[in-house]
Amino acid sequence: MSLLKKTVLLSAAFGVAASMAFSGGDGPTPIERGIKARQAQMTLYAFNIGILGAMAKGDVDYNAEGAGLAASNLAALSAVWMPGAWLPGSDNASVKGTAALPKLWQDMADVGAKGQALAEAAQAMTLVAGTDLAGLRSGIGAVGKSCGACHESYRAKP
Amino acid sequence: MSLLKKTVLLSAAFGVAASMAFSGGDGPTPIERGIKARQAQMTLYAFNIGILGAMAKGDVDYNAEGAGLAASNLAALSAVWMPGAWLPGSDNASVKGTAALPKLWQDMADVGAKGQALAEAAQAMTLVAGTDLAGLRSGIGAVGKSCGACHESYRAKP
Repeated sequence: MSLLKKTVLLSAAFGVAASMAFSGGDGPTPIERGIKARQAQMTLYAFNIGILGAMAKGDVDYNAEGAGLAASNLAALSAVWMPGAWLPGSDNASVKGTAALPKLWQDMADVGAKGQALAEAAQAMTLVAGTDLAGLRSGIGAVGKSCGACHESYRAKP
Repeated sequence: MSLLKKTVLLSAAFGVAASMAFSGGDGPTPIERGIKARQAQMTLYAFNIGILGAMAKGDVDYNAEGAGLAASNLAALSAVWMPGAWLPGSDNASVKGTAALPKLWQDMADVGAKGQALAEAAQAMTLVAGTDLAGLRSGIGAVGKSCGACHESYRAKP
């Protein structure tokens, strides 16, 4: 298949979003696209932690398959690292539509360490979430703590 | 994951969702939350494929590290499977805010196969994207094709 044809296929698959990605013009800016992408990642974290949290609290019945799947989703998501979603100048003092504080960009080593803590907590969760409710409950504290650590330091209070 | 296992998990998640559906409160419904989550996953696919596509087309210079990262992100994202994001009744004939056609729910085996094709194309991409531009170009057609296959069948035309 020719590159041209592949490019056409790609454009067909993603339509405007992909083809405009770096084209300038009237589409979203790289900073706007980046903020949207990182917020999408947060949405997916929240969705999957919500499943686990509802079971941990007893709001819904424990379900081993659903819990295991949510935990493995968290682990997969914690492996998604998008530097282009955290561009300098995409903080809440520079642009609207984000709660990310400027100081996030002042200590990237700490941000990375906090991300690593989340990845490890999510990985640990995959080992216990599908076992039983006690297992799920044993792992969820570390997951929540790792989320909170980053939010506490780098996200503006609502 | 096998299609059978996915089907079982899907059924399990429906139970969870059903019990959440009647929990009351003023927050988003399970269907609204699910649509938001699946659209977030698509946003992340598009963001990472946009990076690869821009390099493939020559809109931006090839960058081995960035390409490899985008490819590994795609592979990680393709492992995220959220049955609760695809609840029956979340099609575009039933609710607003989605382009998912009702027929998606009529052939889940095909949907699963198309998802598997994406996972395999993304995995293959991780082996070539970080090598050089030719490698990236050799892998991107299959990724775009796998995206397009599902969109063509199950997404409403804009």
